[in-house]
Amino acid sequence: MHFPLLLPESETELNLRVKKAREAMQAHGLEAMLLVSSANMLYFAGGIFNGYIWLSLTDGPIFFIVPPLKTESQLCRSIRKPEQIPSMLAADGMKIPARVGLEFEDLFYSEIRRLSGLFPDAEPGDASAVMRDCRAVKTPCELEIMREDGRRQAAVYSHIPRCYKEGMTDLEFQIEIEHVLRREGCLGFPRVAGRRMEINLGSVLAGDNADEPSPYDFSMGGTGADPSLPVGASGNIMRPGTAVMVDMNGGFNGYQTDMTRVWSIGTLPQIAYDAHRCSCDILRDLEKFATPGTEIGELYRRACRLAEDAGMKEYFMGHNHQVKFIGHGVGIQLNEIPVVMERNRGPLAENMTIALEPKFVLPGIGAVGVENTYIVTPGGLENITPLDEEIHEL
Amino acid sequence: MHFPLLLPESETELNLRVKKAREAMQAHGLEAMLLVSSANMLYFAGGIFNGYIWLSLTDGPIFFIVPPLKTESQLCRSIRKPEQIPSMLAADGMKIPARVGLEFEDLFYSEIRRLSGLFPDAEPGDASAVMRDCRAVKTPCELEIMREDGRRQAAVYSHIPRCYKEGMTDLEFQIEIEHVLRREGCLGFPRVAGRRMEINLGSVLAGDNADEPSPYDFSMGGTGADPSLPVGASGNIMRPGTAVMVDMNGGFNGYQTDMTRVWSIGTLPQIAYDAHRCSCDILRDLEKFATPGTEIGELYRRACRLAEDAGMKEYFMGHNHQVKFIGHGVGIQLNEIPVVMERNRGPLAENMTIALEPKFVLPGIGAVGVENTYIVTPGGLENITPLDEEIHEL
Repeated sequence: MHFPLLLPESETELNLRVKKAREAMQAHGLEAMLLVSSANMLYFAGGIFNGYIWLSLTDGPIFFIVPPLKTESQLCRSIRKPEQIPSMLAADGMKIPARVGLEFEDLFYSEIRRLSGLFPDAEPGDASAVMRDCRAVKTPCELEIMREDGRRQAAVYSHIPRCYKEGMTDLEFQIEIEHVLRREGCLGFPRVAGRRMEINLGSVLAGDNADEPSPYDFSMGGTGADPSLPVGASGNIMRPGTAVMVDMNGGFNGYQTDMTRVWSIGTLPQIAYDAHRCSCDILRDLEKFATPGTEIGELYRRACRLAEDAGMKEYFMGHNHQVKFIGHGVGIQLNEIPVVMERNRGPLAENMTIALEPKFVLPGIGAVGVENTYIVTPGGLENITPLDEEIHEL
Repeated sequence: MHFPLLLPESETELNLRVKKAREAMQAHGLEAMLLVSSANMLYFAGGIFNGYIWLSLTDGPIFFIVPPLKTESQLCRSIRKPEQIPSMLAADGMKIPARVGLEFEDLFYSEIRRLSGLFPDAEPGDASAVMRDCRAVKTPCELEIMREDGRRQAAVYSHIPRCYKEGMTDLEFQIEIEHVLRREGCLGFPRVAGRRMEINLGSVLAGDNADEPSPYDFSMGGTGADPSLPVGASGNIMRPGTAVMVDMNGGFNGYQTDMTRVWSIGTLPQIAYDAHRCSCDILRDLEKFATPGTEIGELYRRACRLAEDAGMKEYFMGHNHQVKFIGHGVGIQLNEIPVVMERNRGPLAENMTIALEPKFVLPGIGAVGVENTYIVTPGGLENITPLDEEIHEL
């Protein structure tokens, strides 16, 4: 393995990412950052290595790399432990500023304690918030990578009906979908932010299991197959007259897209098709409405109004347990910013990537609704997970 | 879902775990702990819920639970946010002591900062270390659960040869093994400690890919299928004359066992069989040698001596990149304590569960060696992943 891992256009791309990060640093009042989390490492290096990244408003990025990884680039320094970093920065004539950012929401307390000890005269600041803001707006290169993810995820979804056999459990169905996903190149590791998103390769929710709350931060619930992982498929046989919601991972290349489609076992009661139509109507509405500058909370309110107008309010985003968002940023991590929730007063920005998932949980039937991943463009939302959205019978 | 999730014998089992945790707290000088990490939650509650656990030397455990989870037990309190905990403890007549433990190595910095704000008059201490010690020695109930894991993992491993087809890549082979694992009940989520163990469902290392270093803390390397997850199978076709090491997940019930077996494509050079024999010899030796009270570092030294005596030192635990341990604790998390490394002067204790993995990486051939999960008993190590250890041809 050789470093840096970025593609041939790397220097331009790296410079662009550095420029975006510095703008975010200035907005947060940070003069430098020492980064080590996987997501931020992947952002600057194009891959995971054992080491640290230093970036200040004036210097860097410097990649401090623990052997045996090769360090051929002038941007690299070989180190054994992070305690060497301050003196190596000094030797290169680089200043340690008054505030150094560390990743407060990505590193364990013990790690931050160690790293903040490297800079005893600096005030520690939160680099997680800086990098979340920076990464929310994608570069053209990132958008291409995510479009590829979307194409690949949609291609797998088009094979899903072939994974079904009559009398299957939801879990058996999920396992067959996982198998196709992996064979088609899904890396099998959904990278998430925070501790409250434990999952395997995604979620298949059939029938009333969709109405079971889960302790995690996912939009939908399910009891899971074991109390140690209480989310998603429960191992129950999928019965005629119930909906089967498939929300499986779309991570093929370090980035992810997020996508949900619904199938039925036999025919569903009319209310299920009505609710599903309402979900599609909400997406069509938001696809036009959401442009750079739109207040994010207004997407949520608009979706709620449309659900209410359709008489579906009590089923919107859950029934026994309703969640208070209809979408989220997505990229290197499955759950990036912005969160599309009522109190988010921030504006959409061009080239943000968001997954919108207006869903309904109907008692006795299951979950319906569609999720797509979108790029925010001046003309509205560009759907990068396009695929037939109707409920078809399995 | 109803709480507590523990089995009918729960009260006895919970009391035993609480007793062990209090002993560890006393050893670490902690008077109380507020726990929230998945692994520790699972330990006391038998499942994951949205909430917190309070345990002091004199009071608790109290399970603070965020709705909609039912809170039928007298041990439960319903809360909306952790800031309610101190006044609720006071209302129950429970004291907040001078030192309160929080999980420094399991929670993000931002989380610890919030939780330590609940107890402004208490000095924060490290509950992660307490719980690591507590959980290292398993209860009889836990041992039974892990024996079941071992039986199920070994059963899947016995099906592995059927996953192979000539001309396959290592990754295709791994995906077929994953499929069998999942169909046989593997939960698909290897719960690990720390940030440096990103992985999908395990590792298949074929040929020289085993000699590629990885940035993670696993015993073996591999380039992986993508720079965003650089470990394990690389997508190369498995060639005649190379060894294929399979180290796939054994988590079926909230606990895990860890197990490695090796197959060959065609026949291997003699040195591969010799090195593999040496690995088995090391295991046979340690199985007798290791009893409660044995210094853990001595297991490592003894294994190194046997590898050296066999003339295999330069291949032991890696070739281009050698790691400095031969095993680790295993249980709820894949990588628990003790780490079986030279500088670990602690003693083995009865009912610790450890995975021992003396492995060799041979240039041009690949990785060989066996890994089993063991229970430490007065009579030596009890192998809970028994299965034929020879190298068979695929």
